[in-house]
Amino acid sequence: MANQTPIPVVVNGAAGKMGREVIKAVAQAPDLTLVGAVDKNPAHLGKDVGEVAGCGEIEVPIVNDLQGALLMASQEKQLSVMVDFTHPDGVYENVRSAIAYGVRPVVGTTGLSPEKIKDLAEFADKASTGCLIIPNFSIGMVLLQQAAIQASQYFDHVEIIELHHNQKADAPSGTAIQTAQLLAEMGKSFNPPTVTETEKLAGARGSLADEGIRIHSIRLPGLIAHQEVIFGAAGQVYTLRHDTSDRSCYMPGVLLSIRKIIQLQSLVYGLEKIL
Amino acid sequence: MANQTPIPVVVNGAAGKMGREVIKAVAQAPDLTLVGAVDKNPAHLGKDVGEVAGCGEIEVPIVNDLQGALLMASQEKQLSVMVDFTHPDGVYENVRSAIAYGVRPVVGTTGLSPEKIKDLAEFADKASTGCLIIPNFSIGMVLLQQAAIQASQYFDHVEIIELHHNQKADAPSGTAIQTAQLLAEMGKSFNPPTVTETEKLAGARGSLADEGIRIHSIRLPGLIAHQEVIFGAAGQVYTLRHDTSDRSCYMPGVLLSIRKIIQLQSLVYGLEKIL
Amino acid sequence: MANQTPIPVVVNGAAGKMGREVIKAVAQAPDLTLVGAVDKNPAHLGKDVGEVAGCGEIEVPIVNDLQGALLMASQEKQLSVMVDFTHPDGVYENVRSAIAYGVRPVVGTTGLSPEKIKDLAEFADKASTGCLIIPNFSIGMVLLQQAAIQASQYFDHVEIIELHHNQKADAPSGTAIQTAQLLAEMGKSFNPPTVTETEKLAGARGSLADEGIRIHSIRLPGLIAHQEVIFGAAGQVYTLRHDTSDRSCYMPGVLLSIRKIIQLQSLVYGLEKIL
Amino acid sequence: MANQTPIPVVVNGAAGKMGREVIKAVAQAPDLTLVGAVDKNPAHLGKDVGEVAGCGEIEVPIVNDLQGALLMASQEKQLSVMVDFTHPDGVYENVRSAIAYGVRPVVGTTGLSPEKIKDLAEFADKASTGCLIIPNFSIGMVLLQQAAIQASQYFDHVEIIELHHNQKADAPSGTAIQTAQLLAEMGKSFNPPTVTETEKLAGARGSLADEGIRIHSIRLPGLIAHQEVIFGAAGQVYTLRHDTSDRSCYMPGVLLSIRKIIQLQSLVYGLEKIL
Repeated sequence: MANQTPIPVVVNGAAGKMGREVIKAVAQAPDLTLVGAVDKNPAHLGKDVGEVAGCGEIEVPIVNDLQGALLMASQEKQLSVMVDFTHPDGVYENVRSAIAYGVRPVVGTTGLSPEKIKDLAEFADKASTGCLIIPNFSIGMVLLQQAAIQASQYFDHVEIIELHHNQKADAPSGTAIQTAQLLAEMGKSFNPPTVTETEKLAGARGSLADEGIRIHSIRLPGLIAHQEVIFGAAGQVYTLRHDTSDRSCYMPGVLLSIRKIIQLQSLVYGLEKIL
Repeated sequence: MANQTPIPVVVNGAAGKMGREVIKAVAQAPDLTLVGAVDKNPAHLGKDVGEVAGCGEIEVPIVNDLQGALLMASQEKQLSVMVDFTHPDGVYENVRSAIAYGVRPVVGTTGLSPEKIKDLAEFADKASTGCLIIPNFSIGMVLLQQAAIQASQYFDHVEIIELHHNQKADAPSGTAIQTAQLLAEMGKSFNPPTVTETEKLAGARGSLADEGIRIHSIRLPGLIAHQEVIFGAAGQVYTLRHDTSDRSCYMPGVLLSIRKIIQLQSLVYGLEKIL
Repeated sequence: MANQTPIPVVVNGAAGKMGREVIKAVAQAPDLTLVGAVDKNPAHLGKDVGEVAGCGEIEVPIVNDLQGALLMASQEKQLSVMVDFTHPDGVYENVRSAIAYGVRPVVGTTGLSPEKIKDLAEFADKASTGCLIIPNFSIGMVLLQQAAIQASQYFDHVEIIELHHNQKADAPSGTAIQTAQLLAEMGKSFNPPTVTETEKLAGARGSLADEGIRIHSIRLPGLIAHQEVIFGAAGQVYTLRHDTSDRSCYMPGVLLSIRKIIQLQSLVYGLEKIL
Repeated sequence: MANQTPIPVVVNGAAGKMGREVIKAVAQAPDLTLVGAVDKNPAHLGKDVGEVAGCGEIEVPIVNDLQGALLMASQEKQLSVMVDFTHPDGVYENVRSAIAYGVRPVVGTTGLSPEKIKDLAEFADKASTGCLIIPNFSIGMVLLQQAAIQASQYFDHVEIIELHHNQKADAPSGTAIQTAQLLAEMGKSFNPPTVTETEKLAGARGSLADEGIRIHSIRLPGLIAHQEVIFGAAGQVYTLRHDTSDRSCYMPGVLLSIRKIIQLQSLVYGLEKIL
C-alpha cells in the first residue's frame, strides 16, 4: 500500500448485496477511491451509493450507464479497476467493455462458461490487460482448500461435510464439490475400502464425488455456510473447517484482487493464484 | 454404597473384550465381589480371570460351567448378580438359568427378539426378580438421547451425524437409528421443507429415517465412535455430541446396573429407565 | 394456540435492537396482536413501528408515553402483556406501572437487583398478577443448561469454553458463569485432581469458577456467541454446544413467555421455569 | 518404494511403548527389514521382539548391547538405519555411536539440548551422514502447523485450544507452545485489541504466548490429545484441528524418516523439513 495515489474503482452491481459490501470496503480503504457506481435497478438510480450501502454519503451517485462510468474511469491518471457483481446474462459483455476501455475487471459474477472464459482470456492477452475471474472471494476457504491439497499427499482417507441454512436448495454446495475436485486432481483414489459397506438406510454414506471422496450435506435453520474436510489415518484425524457468518468475509479477497490486478497482464482464474 | 457386604457378581463371557473390562471394573469396586467367571473359549479355561483381564491375580479361575457358577452364586448370603456379555445364540438360555437360580441378570448381549424379551419379562415377573436388558451401557449416550428428546419439544429441525472408524461395515449405526426413533416417537414431523431440495449428487442429503430426520454416516480410520445431534432454529444451533474412545466408557453403566438390579422385581429394558 | 382472540401486547423499547425483533415476531404470530409501541428515543417518535422494525406498516405508531399505552392495553377485553427491553435505570418503575395497570410484564431488561426483584415479587403477589423476569430468552441455551445439570449427576469432570466476537470486553461471559453456578449448585465438587498441575504459562488452565469448574474464554472476530460444556469420564466425552448467530434466536422464548404469563399469578424468574 | 533390497533397521528402545509400535510398523513395511532390537529393560532380554510387540514371531531377539547391534547393521550391504526411542540420558551417546558405525540415526527421544544438537550436526557433517532429530513424528500435526503458518499471512487474529486427558500435568502442551512460536516467527503481532478486556475471573482469557497469541488448555478424562488453531476475521472463522487417538499415528512419520534419511548427508531437525 505504498501507492502514492489511490486506485480508482468502479463497482458494477453497486446496489446488490455483494455490491453494497464492496462499496463499504472500498470507501474504507485509504489506497482505493470509488469513482463510479453502476446498477440496473431503477429503485436506486441517482441516489448516493454510500447511503444505499449504509456507510454514509460519499458523493458518488448510482448511475445505470456502465459505458459512461468506464469511460470516466479510463480517463483517470491511474490504472482503474471495475468490480463486477451483476448477473450471468450480462457479465461477458461487461468484461469485454471494461477491457476495451482499459479498465481492469475483477469479476465475482458467476455463470461464465469455459468457452467464454477462454475467449475473454484471448481478449485480455491482446490488450495486455489483467482480468481476474474469482468464483470464490473467501480467502479462508481458499486457504482451507490449499491445506486440504497439502494433506491429501499424506492421507488416503477423506470425507467432506458441508452445512448450510435450509433455504439452500441444492446439495452438495458448489464449493464442496470444488474441494473434492481439487483433491481428485492430485492423481490418486481416496478411501480404499477395508470392509464391504452396507447402507441400512439409502444415502447414509452421503454422495460419491470424484476419486472416492464422499460429501455430506446438512441443511438446518440457524446454520449459515460451513465446510469441514476430515482426513483420517491410523490413530489420527485432521480436520479443516471454515465458517462463514456474513458477506464481509469476502471483502479481503476483493480488496486483494483490486490491488493485484494492477500488476497483471492477462486473465487469471481463481483467488488461489494470487495468494 | 452403604451396603454392609459386597454384592456377589458372576461374569459370563469373562474372557471376551467386554467381559475383561467388567472383570476389571468389578475388581476395583469396593461394594462388589467377583464370585464367578465363565467363558466358553477353551483357551482361557482354568486361568486366573484377573490375569486374563490384565488387572492382576484375583483368585477366581475361568470355568466353562455356567450352571455351576450360578449355583454357587445363589448360595451367597447376599442377592447375587450375573453380568452377561456372550453371544446372541445362548443369551436367552443364560438369562432363564440365572433367574431360575435366583441370580439377577444384567444383560449386555444383543440379539434378543421382542418375543423372547416378552417371555423373559413374564418369567422374571413370576419369580419377582429384577432383570436388566441394556442394549447400550453408555451413560453419556443415554444422556445425549434424553437431552435430544427434551430439545425436540422446542426445535422442529434436526439432523444426526455419526462418525466411526472405517472397519464398521453398516451405516447408519444402530445407535444413530435408535436416536432418530426416540425423536420420532415424540409425535411430530421434523424438518418441514422451506424450499424444493435438489441432490446434484445422489445421497448428498444423507439417509431419511423416521419423521423426516436425516442421518449422515462418516467412516474414516482414526475415528472411533462418535454421534452428533444438531438442532437448528432461526438464529441458533444446539449440538449434542458424544465421543467414545474405549470400552471403559461402558463400565459406569454396568456398575450402576449391578447396584440397581438388587432393588428391582421385574424386567427393565434400557439404561435410561434406571438413570 | 386455541385462543379465540389474540393476546394484546405492548412493546416497551420498541425501536431498540431487541424491541424491533419483538415487533416483527409479534406481528407474525396469529395469536398475538400489537396494541402499543413505546420508545424514549425521539428519532422514531410517531413513526409506524412496523416500518422502523423492517416488517412493513402495521398501523401502530411509536409513542413515548408508557403510562398511556398501558392504560389503553388495560382496557382491552383480553388480559394484556408488556414486553420490556429498555434500560436498567427505568425497568423497575416500568414493571411497577404495568402491574398497577393489570398489564402483565415480560422483562428482558437486565440490571434488577435481588432486592428489587423481591420487591416486585411481593407487588405481583398482592395483585395476583403474573410477572416474568427472564435474563436469557434463548431456549437453546436453557436446554443446554438443563442437559448439563442432568449430565453433572453422572460425570465428575467438566470444563466450559465460551467463544465470542472480539468486541466483547468482559470474560467469562455472564451466561458461562451462570452455567457454572447451576452445576455448582448440584452439591458436589468437580474435577478432582489426579496429578499436580503446573502452568508453564499463567492462565493456560483458564479461570476457576465455583466447585472446581474451569471456564475458558475465546475472543475472535468472525465469532458471534457460542458456549460449549464438555464432560469427560474414562473412555468418553459428552459435549453440549450452543451457537447463536442473531437476535431472532430469542424470539421463541419471548413468544413462549407472552403465552405463559397469562396463566401465572406471581413473579417467575428464568425461562427454565416455564419450559 | 522401488528399492530393490529392503533398508536394514535397528530399533533402540524396542520394548518401550513407542519402540513396540515401530517394531510392528517396520515388520509390516515390505521395503524395510528389522535387523536388530535393543532394549535395556532386563525383563525382555532374549525374547522375540515381534512377540513382545504383539505382532507375532519375527526371529529377532531383544538384546541389550547397542554397539553389537550397530556393528552387525553396519555390515549389511545396504545403508542401515537406527530408530531411537530411549531416554534423554543416553540418547546423545546412542547417536554418536550410530554415526560412528555408519548407521543413520532417526531420533524420537527428546531431551537433546541445543548445544548437543549442534555438536551432533558437526559430527554428522564430518561423516557426511544423514541424522534426523524429530521432536514430533505426527504428520497430521506438522500439516496443521504448516497450514497455520499459511493462514497467519492473511489472518491477524488467532487463538489456540489444546485438549488432553487429565493425567497430563503441564499446561500448555509443548506442541501448542511450538505452534504459537511458529506463528510468532512470521514477524507480526496477532490479536490487536479493539476493546479494553476485563477478566472477571482471572485466567479466563487463557495464557499469553508470543506475539499476542493466546493458548487455552482443557484437561478431562476421556480426552486423548487434541489441538485446535482458530483464526478469525470479519464474517469468517477458519479452524484447524488435529486429534490423536493412539501412538500408531506416529508411524507414517517414522517410516518416512527411515526412507528419507538414506538420501541425507547432514543433520536435519523436524519432520516438516522432509515433508
